[in-house]
Amino acid sequence: MRAVICHQAVLTVEDVPDPIPHQGQVLLEVARCGICGSDLHARVHCDETAADAAELGYQHFMRSTDRVVMGHEFVGTVADYGPRTRKLFPIGARVVALPILSSNGAAHLTGLSPLAPGGYAEQVLAVPSMAIRVPDDVDTEAAALTEPLAVALHAVRRGDVGARDTAVVIGCGPIGLAVIAMLKAIGVRHVIASDFSAGRRQLAETMGADIVVNPADDSPWSSFADSKRYSTEPVKLIEAGIKAMNRMRAVPFLPWAQIVRAAGKAGGGPVVFECVGVPGMIEHVISHAPVRSRVVVVGVCMGGDALRPSMAINKEIDLRFVLGYDPSEFRQTLKWIGSGKVNAKPLVTGTVGLDGVPAAFEDLGDPERHAKILIDPRR
Amino acid sequence: MRAVICHQAVLTVEDVPDPIPHQGQVLLEVARCGICGSDLHARVHCDETAADAAELGYQHFMRSTDRVVMGHEFVGTVADYGPRTRKLFPIGARVVALPILSSNGAAHLTGLSPLAPGGYAEQVLAVPSMAIRVPDDVDTEAAALTEPLAVALHAVRRGDVGARDTAVVIGCGPIGLAVIAMLKAIGVRHVIASDFSAGRRQLAETMGADIVVNPADDSPWSSFADSKRYSTEPVKLIEAGIKAMNRMRAVPFLPWAQIVRAAGKAGGGPVVFECVGVPGMIEHVISHAPVRSRVVVVGVCMGGDALRPSMAINKEIDLRFVLGYDPSEFRQTLKWIGSGKVNAKPLVTGTVGLDGVPAAFEDLGDPERHAKILIDPRR
Repeated sequence: MRAVICHQAVLTVEDVPDPIPHQGQVLLEVARCGICGSDLHARVHCDETAADAAELGYQHFMRSTDRVVMGHEFVGTVADYGPRTRKLFPIGARVVALPILSSNGAAHLTGLSPLAPGGYAEQVLAVPSMAIRVPDDVDTEAAALTEPLAVALHAVRRGDVGARDTAVVIGCGPIGLAVIAMLKAIGVRHVIASDFSAGRRQLAETMGADIVVNPADDSPWSSFADSKRYSTEPVKLIEAGIKAMNRMRAVPFLPWAQIVRAAGKAGGGPVVFECVGVPGMIEHVISHAPVRSRVVVVGVCMGGDALRPSMAINKEIDLRFVLGYDPSEFRQTLKWIGSGKVNAKPLVTGTVGLDGVPAAFEDLGDPERHAKILIDPRR
Repeated sequence: MRAVICHQAVLTVEDVPDPIPHQGQVLLEVARCGICGSDLHARVHCDETAADAAELGYQHFMRSTDRVVMGHEFVGTVADYGPRTRKLFPIGARVVALPILSSNGAAHLTGLSPLAPGGYAEQVLAVPSMAIRVPDDVDTEAAALTEPLAVALHAVRRGDVGARDTAVVIGCGPIGLAVIAMLKAIGVRHVIASDFSAGRRQLAETMGADIVVNPADDSPWSSFADSKRYSTEPVKLIEAGIKAMNRMRAVPFLPWAQIVRAAGKAGGGPVVFECVGVPGMIEHVISHAPVRSRVVVVGVCMGGDALRPSMAINKEIDLRFVLGYDPSEFRQTLKWIGSGKVNAKPLVTGTVGLDGVPAAFEDLGDPERHAKILIDPRR
């Protein structure tokens, strides 16, 4: 079959042997595969990630010297099963699958390991119990967005965002945009999005962001600092609480929640989604976010990063680092795509064949032109 | 009255004017006041903290050039009220109070601001609605521990620790020890404590820690990594999950929680309390703690600190930074001290008069000799 090979940071289209499904594996004909920001990063920085993964016990993350077929956001049709493998889906059924391949009892990251070639190819292997059938009325391109949208759903869940919370999304790349879509899907009323790119801000609006900010002109924090709903200054909260207590008929003791409400403040801060992932962003959020912000770190910043713990302590910041999703979130995401609860198709700004992948990697560098490019290996 | 003054990092005992209660204030005769680790830190590093506080909107944190009476862990007897102030307690009643003073409508940090002199003195001012009466059968020294124990209760609450979770306490200074006491008070069955000092490890046992580790000989992480209850390697969790799924009768989809249970793993990692507060400790915890650890950062690390976000992401670490407590936690703490649910009196390793405070600051540098020293201004 034909596949895109990444080797020494160079992408080439080559003929490679067809993958053969072993026991516990299903072979899929790839219908679409998304190009993920992680792939762009892995092409040039995979050795750093591989070192991290090795420290964490996984020795088979792709390295620059490997020849790897990337692609972990795939939808495909069932072509064959391995021997002694339960046939959960009929041949020809369309499925999406978690990009994890079980091989000789070990798990490998599909599209990010030489031991589990990914979806930048005509065919890909998956685990039947990790696959879900795509309902007939769901568009193939929409189904291809299951994986990145599941990342967003997981991040939103880990943020414990309630409908009445204010959510702030810093960075409107594909994952930031997917987070906005998921926040609106679960009914969050106030979603503030921030990005330097006009094109990305336009997409943020399309995804349903209520307020969209260009950080070059305005701060995403000022729009709700002005609303007096949140304060960036802990002492203001204490002062407001004391004033509220003194205004009330003095009882020996008041629950703090009541004080906070009396002072006209929400008990917690907003939920912030850091979707940029460059050094300094976490410290930037700690410095500027309101007191008691819950910060979900979705953007992957490689290497060391500096922050001021004392500032995070004074504001009682939560930093919740997130990775991936669980199978139930993956399934939920496909369900919501099917029901129309979430519609992220506007993210798809292009579709290319396998030969177009190297150029697509370049094109994705321009946020004004592209958000998500899908690969159609039959194109 | 006599008071201990901190000026240019030097402590001296001086005669100062008696404090006069204004409207909304109560005057207390100090019975006992604890010396807090924050005080030791503030004596030499208050300018750094003042800069942080100023950035957060509070301009009156103590500076080295100020003349400040420190002390925010006090218990005292009611001596007088300001004009037009509701007399919530009879004269002579013993009370503890939150160390926040309302003065001209602004809140000040008692014992950490020149505008709100603290409890290293014969008398101190407080806010009646922020005070709680100490029940007659509660020992005065035990009551003086309300404030640091409330810090610990707040940290434990912010960690959402359940009785079946494993808690790991890194650093057994007074706050680490108070955290251990609170963890046991709320019924946490597995508490692992770690400190280089033999004296502190002895106190950790006294506070009820189930496993006490000297990190020079052994790692606090190995004791439960060995138990196979938690893994430090994300991929092991995924592999165990896949194996569990393949063992089960294959249904198209399984909830992840079930997979995780089937794999014999807890859904989340342990709850870690970082009670050291020196640069590098957060990164140390991120590097060594199991997957999905919830890390409550109680130790205050000043200045910049470095960590690896990608490692925190791969392990889905939560960092929850905590500060202080709320009034309901303060009240709950005193109640638990009164009922004997929490007994932290073994932390008190010495009591000194005001003249003994400068030497006590030196003595507290030796973890083998001291944990908490109380001041009795009448001694």
